[in-house]
Amino acid sequence: MGSSTHKPTLSAARLTADAYANGILNHDRVLLSRAITLVESKLSSDQLLSEELIQKILPHSGRSIRIGITGIPGVGKSTFIEAFGKYLTSIGKKLAVLAIDPSSQRTKGSILGDKTRMDELSRDENAFIRPTSAASTLGGVAHNTREAILLCEAAGFDVIIVETVGVGQSEIAVRSMVDFFLLLLIGGAGDELQGIKKGIMEMADGVVITKADGDHKKQANQAKADYQHALHLFPATESGWIPKVLTSSAVEKVGLDETWQMIDAYKTYTTKNGFFEEQRTAQNKNWFHSSIEERIKGEIMKHKVLKEKVNKAELQIEQGKASPGAASREIVESFFQLLGQQI
Amino acid sequence: MGSSTHKPTLSAARLTADAYANGILNHDRVLLSRAITLVESKLSSDQLLSEELIQKILPHSGRSIRIGITGIPGVGKSTFIEAFGKYLTSIGKKLAVLAIDPSSQRTKGSILGDKTRMDELSRDENAFIRPTSAASTLGGVAHNTREAILLCEAAGFDVIIVETVGVGQSEIAVRSMVDFFLLLLIGGAGDELQGIKKGIMEMADGVVITKADGDHKKQANQAKADYQHALHLFPATESGWIPKVLTSSAVEKVGLDETWQMIDAYKTYTTKNGFFEEQRTAQNKNWFHSSIEERIKGEIMKHKVLKEKVNKAELQIEQGKASPGAASREIVESFFQLLGQQI
Repeated sequence: MGSSTHKPTLSAARLTADAYANGILNHDRVLLSRAITLVESKLSSDQLLSEELIQKILPHSGRSIRIGITGIPGVGKSTFIEAFGKYLTSIGKKLAVLAIDPSSQRTKGSILGDKTRMDELSRDENAFIRPTSAASTLGGVAHNTREAILLCEAAGFDVIIVETVGVGQSEIAVRSMVDFFLLLLIGGAGDELQGIKKGIMEMADGVVITKADGDHKKQANQAKADYQHALHLFPATESGWIPKVLTSSAVEKVGLDETWQMIDAYKTYTTKNGFFEEQRTAQNKNWFHSSIEERIKGEIMKHKVLKEKVNKAELQIEQGKASPGAASREIVESFFQLLGQQI
Repeated sequence: MGSSTHKPTLSAARLTADAYANGILNHDRVLLSRAITLVESKLSSDQLLSEELIQKILPHSGRSIRIGITGIPGVGKSTFIEAFGKYLTSIGKKLAVLAIDPSSQRTKGSILGDKTRMDELSRDENAFIRPTSAASTLGGVAHNTREAILLCEAAGFDVIIVETVGVGQSEIAVRSMVDFFLLLLIGGAGDELQGIKKGIMEMADGVVITKADGDHKKQANQAKADYQHALHLFPATESGWIPKVLTSSAVEKVGLDETWQMIDAYKTYTTKNGFFEEQRTAQNKNWFHSSIEERIKGEIMKHKVLKEKVNKAELQIEQGKASPGAASREIVESFFQLLGQQI
């Protein structure tokens, strides 16, 4: 499984979309890994090739359960994913883990540089771990990760885990691209949630209280009861599914099968009532529309003059000197004028 | 307070932005009401005049507390707002209530057609009730209501209540334009929340359990304890403020002063830690950016060819035949091509 650490430069490895697609459909991990690098690229030529590739593999995608997993640092996220992942491969699943790597943006390094992280799982031949670098925009993260999911599905992975960091905006983006959203929490005095942003709790289809072993077991059980009660008071999810709360110990390998059973029960339930497909269709339409907005926004910010106007307007809005409504009209009018001049 | 039922046609009453602004700054309710009609208008000429007016009154806006109030039908929302509003005017406040009227879209009628609704408050000379029609888009609602808030502030109202219906998307829009978001609930068997959309609970800065009188009193107190416990388990708000749960009876005039004290304490707390201004600035910037997106989206959908392309792409995405990423690029490219041809 050395593919994810070996990243050939694209110039040295320019392949056709067909070559990538064939490789992926033949479960070639090196090509899968390179294809993910391709969809992450910001070069226009790579983006066109990437779109061609996605179009080719599209009919072979979709046959997985997509699971988002979040939790604040300290909750034992990688430890849980490793134990849960090993359980999944032990029952014959093929697992891909897409980690949205918050550090890569700053250090240009990779989460896998830390060799202890999911070490055992990364050596499992039925698992594929791939850190997706957090691009500078939220849109960037979403865009790349959505395409990486499709590529992994085409390569035959039937469980896709998208990991996120639990403290930022990325949860909302990840929620918009997965079927099941799992929140990891630790038992404690009730303030363990301070790091979790408001709203994340209500996005969860399931909660797992981690580290339910040794001295922590009692606390974990108490937290389970508390959250189960709290979730009961809150509105039902759109799917009609009632979020469940479980406890788990990665050390004692407890709660891993229950976690999978919960996700499986969710899939059965939502497939039966039609929500599973409805949600995926809605997610795709949403992706389409937000992608249009992002592209146009990108076009606007490409022009130095407009970018300066946007920044100036923001400052005036901040100082209460300009109305957001009027300022936005000026930007859009300038944009269309500029386009007229260029063409 | 007949101003809100009397809506002169604009053609018969074309005023300059200065005339509107002067009238509003002189607390002229007829002109305030007409100005709100102006900002709700979709005619380009009205929009330009509206922007000019907003720019003029901008320095006189902002000096109010903006309160969003939501709750499902049956929770006694108008009864609560009427009792709470009467309390506010009794302590010397000047109150404007902007009701986002869900029915007006269908019936072209107005909430005030129902004369029993907030009847007493509507006759209070220190209160101004104005139903804002729910325009066809979410953006439309947000856009108009934001400007209506500014106009009411310029007219000297120091408490602005934005009422919403509690079952749809409008809550998110309203949350993005108020300082304090109040959720009304009724005590009961725990399933009273079925009508409230997930996520609304977590947006609340305060919860008021209504109808805490007679036979319902015990239930209301139980609900208060339950929600207080549940909110305690959930993450803190961004402001650091811990949402409070109160009970209230509009009939017995109980809990109205406590509600105001809660909102006042919130304002003091968030002003002190800087969040109050931060949130308003962030809301304005967000308004600016979403307004740019809306305007451009509007331009795209104005072209018949593009509108058809968007609809066709949506269908293909639904059928799994097109990738949202590639489809969005095609739309944006066609849009720019079309602009080139037109100019």
